[in-house]
Amino acid sequence: MSNPKIYVVGLGPGGVEQMTQRAIKALQECDVIAGYHVYIKLIKDDFADKTFLSNGMRKEVDRCKLALEEALKGQTVAMISSGDAGVYGMAGIMCQVCKDHPEVEIEVVPGITAACSGAAVLGAPLIADFCTISLSDLLTPWEKIEKRLDCASKADFCIALYNPSSIKRHDYLQKACDIMLKNQPGTIPCGIVRNIGREGEAYELTTLAELRDKQVDMFSTVVIGNTQTEVINGRMVTPRGYRL
Amino acid sequence: MSNPKIYVVGLGPGGVEQMTQRAIKALQECDVIAGYHVYIKLIKDDFADKTFLSNGMRKEVDRCKLALEEALKGQTVAMISSGDAGVYGMAGIMCQVCKDHPEVEIEVVPGITAACSGAAVLGAPLIADFCTISLSDLLTPWEKIEKRLDCASKADFCIALYNPSSIKRHDYLQKACDIMLKNQPGTIPCGIVRNIGREGEAYELTTLAELRDKQVDMFSTVVIGNTQTEVINGRMVTPRGYRL
Repeated sequence: MSNPKIYVVGLGPGGVEQMTQRAIKALQECDVIAGYHVYIKLIKDDFADKTFLSNGMRKEVDRCKLALEEALKGQTVAMISSGDAGVYGMAGIMCQVCKDHPEVEIEVVPGITAACSGAAVLGAPLIADFCTISLSDLLTPWEKIEKRLDCASKADFCIALYNPSSIKRHDYLQKACDIMLKNQPGTIPCGIVRNIGREGEAYELTTLAELRDKQVDMFSTVVIGNTQTEVINGRMVTPRGYRL
Repeated sequence: MSNPKIYVVGLGPGGVEQMTQRAIKALQECDVIAGYHVYIKLIKDDFADKTFLSNGMRKEVDRCKLALEEALKGQTVAMISSGDAGVYGMAGIMCQVCKDHPEVEIEVVPGITAACSGAAVLGAPLIADFCTISLSDLLTPWEKIEKRLDCASKADFCIALYNPSSIKRHDYLQKACDIMLKNQPGTIPCGIVRNIGREGEAYELTTLAELRDKQVDMFSTVVIGNTQTEVINGRMVTPRGYRL
């Protein structure tokens, strides 16, 4: 008998069109697809013959344990993540949950993460060195997030902000902007992208100073430019030093 | 007549299997595919009915000008990039070259960048906040790269190093490690991935102290963990704070 197998698959930003061929093949090959119910809904119709295991937000550890159980029973399991499974996704926790089962083969199938899909909507803001920072302090202490915002803006990185806001954290983006504004000019171009790759996709260009007072929702990704970033024909572009 | 149209398409790490459905569709819809000849070769057989425009390394500006000329003649053009067109790729320079032609519609189609495809091979090292830093000083002054290495390691970011080495820059990785070692312990897990998504794909786990004296080639991506990163069953994993 072959080893138990778990795929951890990044769906990219939206539905099946944004998945790689490799990701589609992984879902076709598995018996069970596990995931957060919102993401299961996105792909369910395209893989209708599969068994689905879904649960709610913040039940990530339970979801991985259920997936492991199925794999140990001999089922090939695909654990899905929105975006890239390896960026704020399920790949890490799946490896951790399987720690005592080295016989389980875990194959991580990457997808397009929101920094990349959001940047594509805006133009080309992350063309050079950039950071991703999540503003959610559920899993990372806020002091560490502050330190990262400070260091990243000091070094003139472009920055993609994940989880920029939620009902409980409505002022976190404002706090984050205040930290970055200590190191960078308020004129730096910024972009907000909503519902990337899904119905209602929209973007807005602004500046770091103005971003401070914007309301963004939990379906948004925010991109902060650096001192090189320009707006060209309504798109946000960070030049990379080519001579034109 | 509709506006001139240029797609800038990220191929992901390897051949067609690593592309998104959306990227494949963009290449199918265009008349002309433009790109660096090595990448054209990767996909040529799958889109054999297209016209190809290819040239050599460091001819990026010329390549974009040629693509623009074709688009202005009424051809739908796809400019391809390895990985993600928006991360050290062609999306930025394409927008810059089209600056005086606001009528040209530029659609950036994202792909899987090497940070994400490399991380997937290694396990889940970039699961939380991370930076991408290119060690090539062709387009960015070395002092700026040093500052970014210093700030990123001070803030305990995981780091994906692009262009970690070349014949002319054989000691840049060593210099980079020396900067990071001032801020981070030498025991931090690191990974080197070669030929991601292509023939000869291989990876090696090491530590920051050991990485300093490794020889890596220009087909490699290097991932530096943070103080949380562990090796679990031979994979590099950065936990994200979940309680197991």
